[in-house]
Parts: sequence; C-alpha cells; structure tokens
Amino acid sequence: MARCDALAQFSEFAGGLTRIYLSSEQRLANDLVSGWMREAGMSARIDAVGNVVGRYEGERSGLPCLMLGSHLDTVRDAGKYDGMLGVVAAIECVHALNGAGRRLPFAIEVVGFADEEGVRFGATLLGSRAVAGTFDPTVLDMRDGSGVALRDAMKAFGLDPGAFARAARKREELLAYAELHIEQGPVLEAEDLPVGVVTAINGFVRMAVTLRGTAGHAGTVPMGLRRDALAAAAECVLAVERVGRSELNLVATVGRIEALPGAINVIPGEVRFTVDARAPVNDQRERAYEALTAEIGAVAKRRSLEHRIERLHDHPVTACAPWLMQQLDRAVGAEGIALRRLPSGAGHDGIAICAIADIAMLFVRCKRGVSHNPAEAIDRADAAIATRVLLRFVENFTVPGRA
Amino acid sequence: MARCDALAQFSEFAGGLTRIYLSSEQRLANDLVSGWMREAGMSARIDAVGNVVGRYEGERSGLPCLMLGSHLDTVRDAGKYDGMLGVVAAIECVHALNGAGRRLPFAIEVVGFADEEGVRFGATLLGSRAVAGTFDPTVLDMRDGSGVALRDAMKAFGLDPGAFARAARKREELLAYAELHIEQGPVLEAEDLPVGVVTAINGFVRMAVTLRGTAGHAGTVPMGLRRDALAAAAECVLAVERVGRSELNLVATVGRIEALPGAINVIPGEVRFTVDARAPVNDQRERAYEALTAEIGAVAKRRSLEHRIERLHDHPVTACAPWLMQQLDRAVGAEGIALRRLPSGAGHDGIAICAIADIAMLFVRCKRGVSHNPAEAIDRADAAIATRVLLRFVENFTVPGRA
Repeated sequence: MARCDALAQFSEFAGGLTRIYLSSEQRLANDLVSGWMREAGMSARIDAVGNVVGRYEGERSGLPCLMLGSHLDTVRDAGKYDGMLGVVAAIECVHALNGAGRRLPFAIEVVGFADEEGVRFGATLLGSRAVAGTFDPTVLDMRDGSGVALRDAMKAFGLDPGAFARAARKREELLAYAELHIEQGPVLEAEDLPVGVVTAINGFVRMAVTLRGTAGHAGTVPMGLRRDALAAAAECVLAVERVGRSELNLVATVGRIEALPGAINVIPGEVRFTVDARAPVNDQRERAYEALTAEIGAVAKRRSLEHRIERLHDHPVTACAPWLMQQLDRAVGAEGIALRRLPSGAGHDGIAICAIADIAMLFVRCKRGVSHNPAEAIDRADAAIATRVLLRFVENFTVPGRA
Repeated sequence: MARCDALAQFSEFAGGLTRIYLSSEQRLANDLVSGWMREAGMSARIDAVGNVVGRYEGERSGLPCLMLGSHLDTVRDAGKYDGMLGVVAAIECVHALNGAGRRLPFAIEVVGFADEEGVRFGATLLGSRAVAGTFDPTVLDMRDGSGVALRDAMKAFGLDPGAFARAARKREELLAYAELHIEQGPVLEAEDLPVGVVTAINGFVRMAVTLRGTAGHAGTVPMGLRRDALAAAAECVLAVERVGRSELNLVATVGRIEALPGAINVIPGEVRFTVDARAPVNDQRERAYEALTAEIGAVAKRRSLEHRIERLHDHPVTACAPWLMQQLDRAVGAEGIALRRLPSGAGHDGIAICAIADIAMLFVRCKRGVSHNPAEAIDRADAAIATRVLLRFVENFTVPGRA
C-alpha cells in the first residue's frame, strides 16, 4: 500500500495522478520500481520501449520465466491501484522468495509496462505489444495532443525508436504470464470476496446507430402522424439493456446519444447513439451483435424509420488458459477463500501478451467498483490476501507435461 | 400567391427569407402592404409599435370593427406563408367588398403585426400585445443579438418607445378577431381537406427532467448491478409518448436529451431531457402533467435513481369563441367543404388579442406540415378556397344579440 502511495507521487499534475507514456514522471516511477526490484533480489533494466523489466533467476541462470506484472502508466486523474498494484505485488512475491533464499525451477520476471492505457498517443498496450513482438511501427508517427510524434518522444526519453523490436520476447522464453489487477467492477464486492480468478478478457463489439424519422413541430404534429426518432431510439436503448441481460456475463451499454435538431419544441428527426457489447466468449459476443441488430431493425421497421448500423470496433475475446486458472483456483482455495471466476470487462496487458504466452489474471476487490478515478480504493487486507494468493501460485507453478 | 412572393423579397439575407422586427426589410414590407391596403379601399397607417393597420369603414364611419390579420415578421430562414398569407388574404377580402361597392354594418380592420415570432428580442407577440394593451414596458430594455435595446431599435425605426400605449385598442372598438393561417402541421393534408376551423391555441407545459444513477465502466459492471440513467430515461421517453397518445388532441414530446458523461464505454450516470406537452383544454394539459410526473417518478423509483422535474414554462390554453367557430363552420360548409375542427399546436397573435376580443382562426392546409423552413408550401387552389371562406365569413358576420 505504501509503495502504491509512493508511485502516486509521480504525477504530471499536483493533487491528482496522471502519468503518461514517456513522461518525466514515468522515468521517476521506473527508477523507483527498478530500485524495489533490486532490493527484492532481481536484476532490473529498462527495455527498448521503456518498460521496466526485473528478473529473478531460477535454480540456474537463463531458464524460461513465469512473467508477472502489470502497467505503470495511468489514465488522467487516475486512482493509485489500477496497474501499479500488480507490479508491486509481484515484486513483493519475489521479495519473499528471495528473503527465504528460494530459487524455483524457472525464472520469474516482473514487468512494469510503460503504456497500457494509451492516453498519450491514442493507441493502447504499447508496452506489452512491444514485449509480445506485435508493436506496429506505424504508431511511431502518431502524435500526442501537443503534436509530438511517438518516435520523438522516445528519443527525448533516451530510447532509440528504430530499436523497438529489441523489447520483443520469444515464446520459448516465457512459460506463462500472470497479472494481478484490481477488478474495476463491483462483482467481488457484491459477493463479499477479496479475490476472483479471471476467465477471459471480454471481447467487445462497438456500434454506431443512426435512426432517421421526420423532425416536426412539437405542437402541430399529432402523435399518430409522427416519426419520432427519439421515441424509436428509446425502444432501442431498452432493447440493448434487454439483450445485455439475456445471458450471463454479457453486458451491453448505450453510452452516447444525440437527438437532432435538439430543441425543446421540435420532434427529433434524427438520433445517433452508440452500443458497446462485451462477452467472455466470442460466440456470445456475436450472438449479442445479431440480437442487437435484429432488435434495432425491428424497431425502425415498426416505426417506419430509416436506420443505419455501423460496426465500429471489434475486439476478440482473450481467454485465460484453463491450466493457469486451475492453479490460481488452488492458490485461492489454499487461502480458505471461496472460488469465484469472473470475466474481465476491461482490457489488460494480457490481450497483447497472449500472442507469446498463455495468460492468467487474479482480480482484487475494489471499493464500489470505481476505477479511472481518484476515488479508486482497495482494502489493505485484500491486498495482503491477493499477494499471498499470487505467491502461492508462483511457488506451486508447474507447466503440465513438463519435467 | 404573387403577393406572398413579393413580400418574400424583403429579407435580411439574399437567397432565403428572414425578416425581423424593426428591420429595414420590415419597413419595405409595411410600405408594400400599406399600398395594397389603399388599393383595396382602406386607409392605412403604421401604429406606435410598427404594426400596419388598414381600415375599411362600414356603413358609416367610426363603427366597431371585425379585425382580421396575421403577422409580417418571420423566423430565420422562413417560409413565405407563415403570417403573410393571413394578411394578404384579409386584404383580398376587403378588395372584393370594395370592388362590389359593399359596406357592412361594421368596419373591417386588417393588421399586419410587426412581431409575432419574437426572433429579435426573444419576446414573442410584441405587435399584438401592444394592440391588446398588454405590452410589457420592461421589454423595451431587452437587447437583440447585437446588443441593441428594443427602445433604441424603435427610435431608429422612427417610433417613440414611450408611446407604445398608443397602439392599444379598446375592447369596444373590436367585435372579434379572425385570423387565417397555414396549419404548420400535417392534419389537413392527411385528411385531404383544404381548410379547418381552429378550436383553441393549445396551452403547453414544459419540463426539464434530470435522472441520476451511477456512471460506470461499460465492461466491468454487470447488468444486474447497474443504475443506468439512460435506460431509465428511455423508459421515460416512451412514457411521454404513451401519455401523448392517451387522449385525443394531446401531444407530448421529448425534444432534447443529454447523457453524461457521454462516452461510448461508460454507463451514463446522469441524463437530462425536456418534455413539451400541449393540449387545447387546460384540464387536459394539467392531467398530462400529472401523468407525466407520476410515470417519470415511477421509473426512477423502480430503478433506484434520483430524479428531479422542473416545471419550466406554462402557457394556458387560448380558446376560440364558439360563436365565431360556428360562423366559420357555416362559411366552410357553404364552400362545400367537409367540416374539420382542430386545435392549433403553434402559438399565434390571437393569444394576445384574446385579451380584448373573442378570437377565431381558419387553418389552411400546407405541404407535409412543414413550416419555419424555406420548404413551406401551399396549393394555389387552397389559398383561393381559404380566401373565399374568409370572405363568406366576413360578409355574413354578425354578433349574436346585437342589432
């Protein structure tokens, strides 16, 4: 908890926490974390894109590693635990092993990823994509809000933008990747559980919907002669909610809505709204998409409106590996905690790392599910339990079928 | 039709029609209309607030008058008939009487009101309020978009702002007020009728509604743990539509909606929307208000949201006089047209004039109900029928119980 507080000092603005990729605050955070890693018996280095990488050798030098970690960057006006908790907890585990003089039949690496949130350049997971070897070099030309290109920001940070590929790791170097992270949702709190095992990082589909009816005078057009685009959109919003409720673990949200022309005395002639639907299984996500388009189409037809549905973004499901979930389950059970598996609604570095390794995640309860907000909070006791579960998982980690 | 075209030439901007109160275009329109009035055998004058007033004496000079008319100002980017048609049709009627050398047992006045739309100073019906003696002198200090106060605009137009009361007419000078106006709605078109007799200028009530739930991550908060303000608002929008449909002649509209924070991946924590409900009977309007507040309250309660309903504006119903409606009905029937009575959803000068006289209105079918738009259109044949109906009404006009 003290280390999360210490990291929260490195912020672009006083009185809050904002730490973006390749900032001077990132350097300070990297330095602090490198120091903690060395104290815990690890070697520590900054890789080619600015990730901090600590390594605790196994029974002999050069063994493939179990990679632990999370990210050190934040959103704007962030909380102290999103990302950071996973890095400090992983260091804590190594610290315990090192204190007991234990070496395992594999190395442990702890990575503090430099960019997960994507605040600065609008592209997420830059740190973990570089590690996974999926870093897209066209991103080097993307510019931040001040017009600084990523490649120039890298140079200013002391990195060679042409050398990003050196951060990439090979599949044979990694046995698995495991990340501890706050839940950022209310499920564990609602069920009074300190931790849960993640089944998948939800895939999502995002849609932009436009409904076109006829604008008209709110006083002169009788109800029976209206083609009110907002009344139609209201039915669609409720259909989105209904579809979201129709299957376990599915969620569907209308986050943005705009009614045109938008005057108190004019019947809306056009409404635009967005839909964000997520599911831990690709088939389920696709089923939701089909149901949503069918429902919206039916509303438009019944009300004689034109409609257009644009499929904006798609992100497939990132499944956690069953063999890793089982080992996490055992670690949870050994702490006397009821097992709870749950999907992750938010994205995480595992989305990138799964390109080179099986992944697992352990969620930690957070207060009222609040995240991306200074009010983000966790219980000290939960942090301790989660760290013990992670340590147990590491101590007992084995790759099935491997000597 | 040609006169409506001619008036449409006087616009603030070329290629459209915008003619606001006390503009140089208004002066040109007033001059043109005054000329037409004189051609039709009337005296014509500009009154103390800029209205054009034409008078056709009756069998003897100084008799009380039947006042006809409408407004000569427009909204921005207006159509050619809203207001103007009523003025030129009234002049046409007097022209016919004068051509036949007929004098009636009452005078006829035709007024071209200088401000009905209220575009320039944000206060509507300035012309007709001055005639009705209900002009509010505090309005003289209101400023237009360029910072010019009404009192200074009046001076620049050659009017004495201190003399506005001289435009006021006494109840005993008027027998009634009758206005011909385009419907600005789709009812007559839908029923294939050229004209209809207005029962009342609808009263309205306007509300601002705020629903407060809990914002949250669109991925991490399961459907069952949400307090989604937009889903609740969607139920309210449909409730508004349902209430609007629940009684004949009632209309209810949600014209504006805003969901906060308004991001594709965030569950809306707060939604604000407006409600505009109108009815031709005050009790009906009040019943609608009660039903709407009850429905919105029930939605908020069921979904555990906070809600606030602010009653923004109220305007009572302006009823048309039954004895005048009957005389209009007879004139419509005499033209062989099926009778149709309908309320007016939009406001008109009669709202002000009813302070000093009983009022009546004749609606003329307009294309697709479009108004306040350059696409505003009417049929030449409908204009002719409507003018004949108005002339018949004038020729046969009698005040019951009066010699």
